[in-house]
Amino acid sequence: MSFETLWADQSAIGRNPETGGYTRGGWTPTEREATTWFLDECAARDLTVESDGIGNLVAWWEPTGGYASQAPNGTTGSGSAGTPTTPSPGGEPAGGPAARRGVVTGSHLDSVIDGGAFDGPLGVVSALAAVDLLRAQGFEPSVPIGVGAFVEEEGSRFGMPCLGSRIAAGVLSAEKALALTDRQGVSLAQALELAGTDPAGVGPSPLLERMGTFVELHVEQGRGLTAPVGVASSIWPHGRYRFTFEGEANHAGTTLMEDRHDPMLTYAMTALAANKQARLAGARATFGRLSIEPNGTNAVPSRVIAWLDARAADDATLESLLTAITRQAVERAERDGTTVAVVPESVSPIVDFPAGLRDRLVGVLDGAPVLPTGAGHDAGVFSAAGIPTAMLFVRNPTGISHSPAEFAEEDDCLAGVEALAAVLKDLAQ
Amino acid sequence: MSFETLWADQSAIGRNPETGGYTRGGWTPTEREATTWFLDECAARDLTVESDGIGNLVAWWEPTGGYASQAPNGTTGSGSAGTPTTPSPGGEPAGGPAARRGVVTGSHLDSVIDGGAFDGPLGVVSALAAVDLLRAQGFEPSVPIGVGAFVEEEGSRFGMPCLGSRIAAGVLSAEKALALTDRQGVSLAQALELAGTDPAGVGPSPLLERMGTFVELHVEQGRGLTAPVGVASSIWPHGRYRFTFEGEANHAGTTLMEDRHDPMLTYAMTALAANKQARLAGARATFGRLSIEPNGTNAVPSRVIAWLDARAADDATLESLLTAITRQAVERAERDGTTVAVVPESVSPIVDFPAGLRDRLVGVLDGAPVLPTGAGHDAGVFSAAGIPTAMLFVRNPTGISHSPAEFAEEDDCLAGVEALAAVLKDLAQ
Repeated sequence: MSFETLWADQSAIGRNPETGGYTRGGWTPTEREATTWFLDECAARDLTVESDGIGNLVAWWEPTGGYASQAPNGTTGSGSAGTPTTPSPGGEPAGGPAARRGVVTGSHLDSVIDGGAFDGPLGVVSALAAVDLLRAQGFEPSVPIGVGAFVEEEGSRFGMPCLGSRIAAGVLSAEKALALTDRQGVSLAQALELAGTDPAGVGPSPLLERMGTFVELHVEQGRGLTAPVGVASSIWPHGRYRFTFEGEANHAGTTLMEDRHDPMLTYAMTALAANKQARLAGARATFGRLSIEPNGTNAVPSRVIAWLDARAADDATLESLLTAITRQAVERAERDGTTVAVVPESVSPIVDFPAGLRDRLVGVLDGAPVLPTGAGHDAGVFSAAGIPTAMLFVRNPTGISHSPAEFAEEDDCLAGVEALAAVLKDLAQ
Repeated sequence: MSFETLWADQSAIGRNPETGGYTRGGWTPTEREATTWFLDECAARDLTVESDGIGNLVAWWEPTGGYASQAPNGTTGSGSAGTPTTPSPGGEPAGGPAARRGVVTGSHLDSVIDGGAFDGPLGVVSALAAVDLLRAQGFEPSVPIGVGAFVEEEGSRFGMPCLGSRIAAGVLSAEKALALTDRQGVSLAQALELAGTDPAGVGPSPLLERMGTFVELHVEQGRGLTAPVGVASSIWPHGRYRFTFEGEANHAGTTLMEDRHDPMLTYAMTALAANKQARLAGARATFGRLSIEPNGTNAVPSRVIAWLDARAADDATLESLLTAITRQAVERAERDGTTVAVVPESVSPIVDFPAGLRDRLVGVLDGAPVLPTGAGHDAGVFSAAGIPTAMLFVRNPTGISHSPAEFAEEDDCLAGVEALAAVLKDLAQ
């Protein structure tokens, strides 16, 4: 099947006709529909789908005469939609004791709230298209090639980016993960139960034991890439910090301006300060999410909770950026008679992808450009967990991402599929 | 029954044990419970309760030998909880053709989100306590005295302050009112149907035809009153304006700071400008309510909607305040590459209470202080509708209002009941 058809099918799922955007939080109906589409496509390709306790999926193209026929329980025949097999609890892959590590590619199918079509799905669709291309070329892998789809990468539902990969890699405990709640107060444990998944199975993933190498193809998200395809050098360190500004609720009409302790003012100055400090540091700082109490038109708020997303080229710059923003917030709080408390919700240090693998990709792709990214990815989690990992980027002409306007040219996407196929061929030959 | 007992009973209804505050939006369970309490207290006092189509209530203490006995259909006997009578559609009061205009006092039982105990309920409780006090004194009114409770004064559910009195006075059409929606998208028409009220009855209220004079007692809401009780001179002009800031959703990690069109920044500067302009003008300006899209931690927002509450001592000052804030918002939007649109949701001109009635109250109360208020009230709506109207204020030692910390000393509340009783005695003798 052509990339174009795969892309058209996938990108029709859950598109908001009003905004043109996608809202595929983990275990929501649209995300589940996209997952079903993925399972169907894997089944159509005779790929053997394995799942783990949180619902990460890897669909295997086993080498001819490989492991499927050796499976002791017959679970590794062709995958069928909705019924992926699960490796045994001891971490033994479904292919049996002899199943070998392979080259895994893929990305995620979930999205931010009203996000674009490319962030995530492009990597999954390109992986399937690359398998099709390699098969059309008559390529026979000598090591297994896996196509992966990892859950809740954006963290748009449970607030934790790379949720699926973090659990799989064991850097987020099952206990902490299952207690996470969405904005409606539904816990991850409850969401899993509603989706028919036993939360008891959540934990470090046996899928990773077969992941010899991981290569994620992703749409580039700034304007850092002028060629159609590039290779990642690193992922910027990234923090999410919860700023809680507290003051005193009061009547908006009667309370003298000088009698107020209005946390909205402290927040507003902090948002402007964050922008200025990020520009000065050549970094990124964004306040895109707020929760206000009581959030009434005629009441001075008692509390404003604001989430800061901050990223920088290195760990020291990120730390000094946070320090500068926090200092300005505290100073303004003193003037406003309010308070501010800052709690890091997640802080990811820099990920430097291994230079050897990176250079090998650059070689295969005839000197493709190398660039860092400010975006977090499952590839960063897997790399930090010790799996040799690389990333390919497809050019983003506008730099817009996490928006319905996110876009990549079809020619660049096709170049991405060809590049990914070339890389897989090189690694799995 | 003593004021203290009435107060204790009423203020136990719907108190949030966590915050100490009250959330009694119109037709919510807690507001309905407070209304049931009111009807029970009216029944216990043999007051004849009349209702209108939107649910405003007036409970009448008819003069002895008065109109109840002349009622053609027996509906004006003692009121019973939950079954107020409704004046006939032609506006003929339930007391029959001979029913006379009376002196109405009262306030509202609804609240802002997590508001205080006093704003509204103090006026209703004090009205009942004043009736008790006058009866204990052996007073016999020669004109009817009414105790009123008017619905959705705060506008905390449907966004329209003084909803009940505006509909009653005919300044808000039934059509517009019924189409208002709450934050869950429930229309007023639907809310009424759920509460067992036929929306077809909503419209100008026959209750107002018996309202010869209206006196509302209310907790003062700034720190404008140093005596226990004062008399209102005017209500400041007051506007609610919806500011819609639009930019471009984008990835918080990858989008260069200089490539962004972030409406949050435009909003933040506007919030700070509003505060500064209000201070300069001796006025009030508050941004206490926001709606953000997509409201995700890792996305530059596409849209920030912010509601400005602005008030000033006169109409010209309010207008120039809005102009100054809007100008600064537009200038900043040009720098941010965003847009801003300002829509007035409700604008109420100044209400000057009639000087004659005001001076009469001051005389009865031995020279009580006279002061304006920045808060809107049903009294303002009734005054603008041509009903001779006055207000009494009870001292607020902290100036805090629309907050769980809202407070008045019991001695001041008792002084308020005595003042209200003296005023009713003077007007109904």
